This record gives sequence, C-alpha cells and structure tokens, in this order.
Amino acid sequence: MTPTITAFRASPDGGRGLARDMRVRWALEEVGRPYDVRLLSFEEMKQPAHLALHPFGQIPTYEADDLVLFESGAIVLHLAERFEGLLPADANARARAIAWMFAALNTVEPPIVEREQVTYTEGDKPWYAHRLPLLEERIRHRLGQLSGRLGVRDWLAGAFSAGDLMMVMVLRRLEGMEILEDFPTLVAYVARGQSRPAYQRAFAAQRAVFAGNAATGKPARHRA
Amino acid sequence: MTPTITAFRASPDGGRGLARDMRVRWALEEVGRPYDVRLLSFEEMKQPAHLALHPFGQIPTYEADDLVLFESGAIVLHLAERFEGLLPADANARARAIAWMFAALNTVEPPIVEREQVTYTEGDKPWYAHRLPLLEERIRHRLGQLSGRLGVRDWLAGAFSAGDLMMVMVLRRLEGMEILEDFPTLVAYVARGQSRPAYQRAFAAQRAVFAGNAATGKPARHRA
Repeated sequence: MTPTITAFRASPDGGRGLARDMRVRWALEEVGRPYDVRLLSFEEMKQPAHLALHPFGQIPTYEADDLVLFESGAIVLHLAERFEGLLPADANARARAIAWMFAALNTVEPPIVEREQVTYTEGDKPWYAHRLPLLEERIRHRLGQLSGRLGVRDWLAGAFSAGDLMMVMVLRRLEGMEILEDFPTLVAYVARGQSRPAYQRAFAAQRAVFAGNAATGKPARHRA
Repeated sequence: MTPTITAFRASPDGGRGLARDMRVRWALEEVGRPYDVRLLSFEEMKQPAHLALHPFGQIPTYEADDLVLFESGAIVLHLAERFEGLLPADANARARAIAWMFAALNTVEPPIVEREQVTYTEGDKPWYAHRLPLLEERIRHRLGQLSGRLGVRDWLAGAFSAGDLMMVMVLRRLEGMEILEDFPTLVAYVARGQSRPAYQRAFAAQRAVFAGNAATGKPARHRA
C-alpha cells in the first residue's frame, strides 16, 4: 500500500520547503518509495480527525497499512530502518548516524526554532531588539561546534545518512537570518544536501503544492 | 565489556536527577546492564578529549567497545534496540514507541528547556517578568495535548517503553515551576515512572554522586 503523508495546504514558508513534510518527502525519495499527500488547512489540523493521528495537531503524519506515525524524526527513522539508502549496514555505524538525527532535533534545532518563532510571538514587544543578539549567539555557538566536527568531511558520519538529511533540513531553517553564512563549511554542507537528486524531487513536489498544481482536491501521488 | 557513561562531577541540579545522564542510567537499569561512570567537571567537558566524544561538549556520552555515542535520545534508543525491556517486539508497535521519544525530545522538551534557561540567561533583564507567562503558556498548551492523549492509559503506547522513559524525564524538568501540577493525569504518569524499581536504582546512583559517595576518583561501577 502506498503510504500517505500530511502537509500544509498553505505552507507559511511560501513553497521554500522549510515545513517538516519536506524531511519525510526527502527520505521517501532517498529510499525510492512512492507516496500520497493529504493537504490540510490550519483549521483541519485542529479537528479530532487529525488529532487522532497527531496528538499535537501538526504535520507531517505518516499512514501505511495499520501504522500511523507522527514526528518527522520518527517517520524518517522508520523509513531508514525499513528501506535501504539512509543508514549504513554496520550496527555501530547505524547508531552513530542515528545520533546525528537526535543532535539535529534536540541540540541544533531548538535555538533555531526559538529565533524563528520570536519574530511572530514577540516581534511587537519592546525587548525584541535586545533579545535577538542573545538568541543568535546561542545558534552561533552550536554552529561553531558543528562546523568544527564536520571539518573537511562531506557528511557527518561516513556516507550520507538520515542524520545528514535531518541536519541539513534543520540548518535550512536559518535561511534569511544571516547566521549560517558565517560558517562556510556548513553552507557547503547544506548545498551538498540540496544537490542530491532525491532532495530536488522532494523540493519540486512540495513546491508544486504552493504553486497550486496539487491543490486540486484529489491527493497528489508521487512516484519516486 | 562494561560500557562507560559520562556525568557531571557536580550536577547543577543538586542530586535531583534532572541531568541527562539520568535518562541513560534509567535505560541501563531497565535492560539490566551494568555500567561504569566517568565524572567530568565543566572545565573537563570543554577539553579536546571530551569534545572528541561529544561534539557539543555535553554529557552524557556512552562508550562500549569501539562504539562512542552522544545525545541521550540516541543512547537510550541504542540500548532499547540492542537489549530487551524498552521496546515492544512488534515492528509497528516499536515505531510508535519510538515516535514518543521524538515527541518528548523535539516537541515537549524545547519549550520546557526555554523556560528553565531563561531564569539563568535573562533573569536580570527588565523583560523577564513579562516573558514568563508567554513561555509558560507554550508549555501548558503542549501539556494539555499530551494529557488529552494519555487519558486513562498508564503509558503512552501500550506497555512502558523508551518513549515513556524519555517523556517522564522531560516532564520532570518542570519540577518547581508549578505548571505540571495543573495536569493531574501527567502528575500521576510521572509518579508511575518514578515508582519503577529501575528508575529508583538509577536515581540512587546519581544521588550518590551528589552525596560524594562516588566522587572518590575511581569510576563508580553499577551492577544492574
């Protein structure tokens, strides 16, 4: 059965592929699996039908046969464990690649999300301009450490893995903040991720939603 | 070979078991594996020897034979996949339990850490008192959703799993903030986790470090 994922009907990123469905689309393309997409409005995401799939009312979800998953990290890991292409075969090497998924989601992403959200939640407050440098310093600290570890390597742990997929997507959230640009090693790393054919297919598919190509009422079907 | 984990020599939580080594200690106790602990000062955590193990200079790390892991989520997942006791046998049920690990670390924990950190980083700023209610509302929103999903269940996805272990530890970070108390379902859930014998052994072991019992210079060895 072709799995179905959910995505924003109207993504707030305007088709830039920053929403979390892009992580799952990219993973599906890397492992060569077709998928269907069900688009949701913000109102639909708050309804009981969606909350039954995703307790926090977000996207993406993943439905395949009798399995329903939420959390992009969990979905990508599930795909990586079930199909070839996102994790090395050796058990220790797999564990190391998975560690980078957690590092992306629990160590690198939180300060980036914080910086991103603050514009929406506190942009009109008198302290906003004072807090921005504090938030950016936290991000720079993490990026410096990440850049140091990556060094001259192409990918974080051997061959390209689910850890890199997640880290590249997390770093992409910095677009427009003029922070990543101070770390050329990481700029090149993100560009390497974006140049992968699977990334480009996934990006085009989510871009098509924004362009209205897939907003026809019937589910979009993607053949990887 | 007995694995070695790292932990704070002087934990800022004063022996309350809120540091991330507690997650790994608990997991090791649940799967019945002995472990050694190497205690680190904040100064030692910044040194190249430790940064080689943990690119972000934090604790815990996990060393076993030629495997070195960082990120508490990755270490707990590795233990859960390698030994019995933290994940169900059925593949779909495993994926669902792992989804709750990611939910704990990427959806529930970030606003809690933000609330925790702000006292240290912005406690002296004029906007501190204005921001606290904003931060607490974000936490309450997530706790309401989590409480609704847990409902009358004992655990989030069937039997106790690594997903519950991680969620209980993330919720424990709210101690003293007077937020969790408004969600009796979650208070009872955390208490259920804390009443597990494996939790209690892990808690006693980290508490012994604070009490000075393990700060003798030689590694503490724990027989699960």
